[in-house]
Amino acid sequence: MADPARAFALSEHRCRCDALQAGMALAGMDALLLTTAADIFYVTGFLTRFWESPARPWFVVVPAKGNPVAVIPSIGADLMGQTWISDIRTWDAPDPSDDGVSLLAATLCDLVLAEGAIGTPMGLETQLRMALSDYMALTARIAPRRMVDATDVVQRVREVKSEAEVAKIRAACAVADRTFARVPEFAGLGRPLDAVFRDFQRVLLEEGADWVSYTAGGAGQGGYGDVISPATAQPLARGDVLMLDTGAVRDGYFCDFDRNYAIGAVAADTARAHAALYVATDLALETLRPGMTAADVHRILCDGLCANGATPGGGRLGHGLGVTLTEWPSFTPKDRSVLRAGMVLTLEPGVEIAPGRILVHEENIVLREDGPELLSARAPAELPVLE
Amino acid sequence: MADPARAFALSEHRCRCDALQAGMALAGMDALLLTTAADIFYVTGFLTRFWESPARPWFVVVPAKGNPVAVIPSIGADLMGQTWISDIRTWDAPDPSDDGVSLLAATLCDLVLAEGAIGTPMGLETQLRMALSDYMALTARIAPRRMVDATDVVQRVREVKSEAEVAKIRAACAVADRTFARVPEFAGLGRPLDAVFRDFQRVLLEEGADWVSYTAGGAGQGGYGDVISPATAQPLARGDVLMLDTGAVRDGYFCDFDRNYAIGAVAADTARAHAALYVATDLALETLRPGMTAADVHRILCDGLCANGATPGGGRLGHGLGVTLTEWPSFTPKDRSVLRAGMVLTLEPGVEIAPGRILVHEENIVLREDGPELLSARAPAELPVLE
Repeated sequence: MADPARAFALSEHRCRCDALQAGMALAGMDALLLTTAADIFYVTGFLTRFWESPARPWFVVVPAKGNPVAVIPSIGADLMGQTWISDIRTWDAPDPSDDGVSLLAATLCDLVLAEGAIGTPMGLETQLRMALSDYMALTARIAPRRMVDATDVVQRVREVKSEAEVAKIRAACAVADRTFARVPEFAGLGRPLDAVFRDFQRVLLEEGADWVSYTAGGAGQGGYGDVISPATAQPLARGDVLMLDTGAVRDGYFCDFDRNYAIGAVAADTARAHAALYVATDLALETLRPGMTAADVHRILCDGLCANGATPGGGRLGHGLGVTLTEWPSFTPKDRSVLRAGMVLTLEPGVEIAPGRILVHEENIVLREDGPELLSARAPAELPVLE
Repeated sequence: MADPARAFALSEHRCRCDALQAGMALAGMDALLLTTAADIFYVTGFLTRFWESPARPWFVVVPAKGNPVAVIPSIGADLMGQTWISDIRTWDAPDPSDDGVSLLAATLCDLVLAEGAIGTPMGLETQLRMALSDYMALTARIAPRRMVDATDVVQRVREVKSEAEVAKIRAACAVADRTFARVPEFAGLGRPLDAVFRDFQRVLLEEGADWVSYTAGGAGQGGYGDVISPATAQPLARGDVLMLDTGAVRDGYFCDFDRNYAIGAVAADTARAHAALYVATDLALETLRPGMTAADVHRILCDGLCANGATPGGGRLGHGLGVTLTEWPSFTPKDRSVLRAGMVLTLEPGVEIAPGRILVHEENIVLREDGPELLSARAPAELPVLE
């Protein structure tokens, strides 16, 4: 049973539903079909690691008015019954002859008139979590009702966090803060990187993570090569920079930030790169405001790095954060999304010290009317040295 | 960098690719488009937790002849470059104007003649991991080439494990075996369930899991209510049965089995239910053979439970296992999939002792010509009692 003390108040879920329905009305949608763990958790509070199994699809339908309807495998009925959702329709999944398609089609036909439009997220950074052939069959079964793109409707609501959500993300960040403070216990000269990765996850659990959905990192002389590889058994060597990054989860909300550590000694160019990252992040912490675009944040961070003699790394320099490890927007030159108060964001500038040698710095913030409020404890201004 | 000592030999990847291409030829497919972490890892060896971020799509195209082509975000180029894939085409993702669609369309048009068919998995237990609107745009861009369902092509190859894969799953099972042996260290009378869940994950890491993608469980008087809920802070009480279940990952391969523990004392009906589960599992371990169907396994387990006075639980009673926590087939009355030698499977009988009070037992096996070989150490015949 989900711990009531750790769930959201009913009013929070009603607010979310009202906001979605307001967006649907503006967009001319008569229902919203949700299929992903994140969207379904957001609307209903249904939280389980069972999504790890790709076997079964799960559906929640938000009608134009009234409460959401769950159309789910029967194995989830008990847990969904503990949320605020009361209309729960189930089938025995997986069913090779009809894996919920008839039940979902009937539900949509119940809730939406024949000329109606049903939204589901189809755009950037979204996925449809159901078999494609089932989706095709569904669209035929519900005709003349039509499916339309609901990316904007969902993202404009989810991207602005309530204070209750900010508190959850702050708690996840605090787990990582306490863990990063304990890195000297398990990382140092001669320690194999894969052992460090395991201990990092162990301590995240000890410090209160419910589970650790994401860890990444790297280590290399004066900087690392990339930040997405699994760890090898290579021992940490004098002159390495070790980076550890985590998406630890508490109550269904993620943190996502990293910390860097020098092993034994810091090369001069590494120290300069780290200082530039620090100053560029400070600049963003001072200047970000609602109304700026994601591209503006990219430019501010790049300008801050260049002004301090560093070469910005490629790729995005931060992103949204919340119910998933990464959310929109993306701090790239092409993303014109407008920042809004209540957005939880990562500032993630990277520099290329030399080809194949990078350094990445990351903090988590909530954007307020008067600027960023840190959710992660600010990284130390100088690279800590581990022996 | 991925640890070469823990990766597969090139010959293994070539075999997998050859097998897919043989299936494609039989099905009349001119290319195969893969989008999920599991399918892409299977073909290329590309292993990263970065899939946790929903921001970016990743693509691998297997042509009718020749080596696979990766069409991926540039952030993955280094890691993909360490696999056997040499044709790696990248774009800077996420890109709101064109998130890889043009590059993927150009690649498919390079590799497939205009009248050709491109397969991608669309059926039961599959998902398309890219934005739906991008998929629609892609199908228009590659016309008159057409997309067809490749579920069978992919599943018939992936479901039969090589000896190298069996060794990986055996190693993951051994991690869980060692962890279950240590459960008395951290579970017992008065211990809160959420603390037990955390310690369970901690010990899985200590015993060699690279990461813990899935844990589940339950606790209740004489049996538990469901098996997919997060843990609460409820302390374990005398008469509870505690169940812990894990999908721990090593080298990208999962185990998936559970163990039950009685707290302080065992009720008579619980002991009978456990005995029935044990005998039914033994029956399946003795009688399963290649050529049987998934529905046959369901019947064997149900018959074994009923013959011992137990009521089979609803839902499936086991499934495939490997690169994901669960794979097809499903042991249900409706699944007519034929079992083949080399399949790795879970036997997962459940009984309902009373409404809302169940007991679930699980083992992992590889099916050989002469029957199952256990990959998990067989559970104890009697419920272990923790004080």
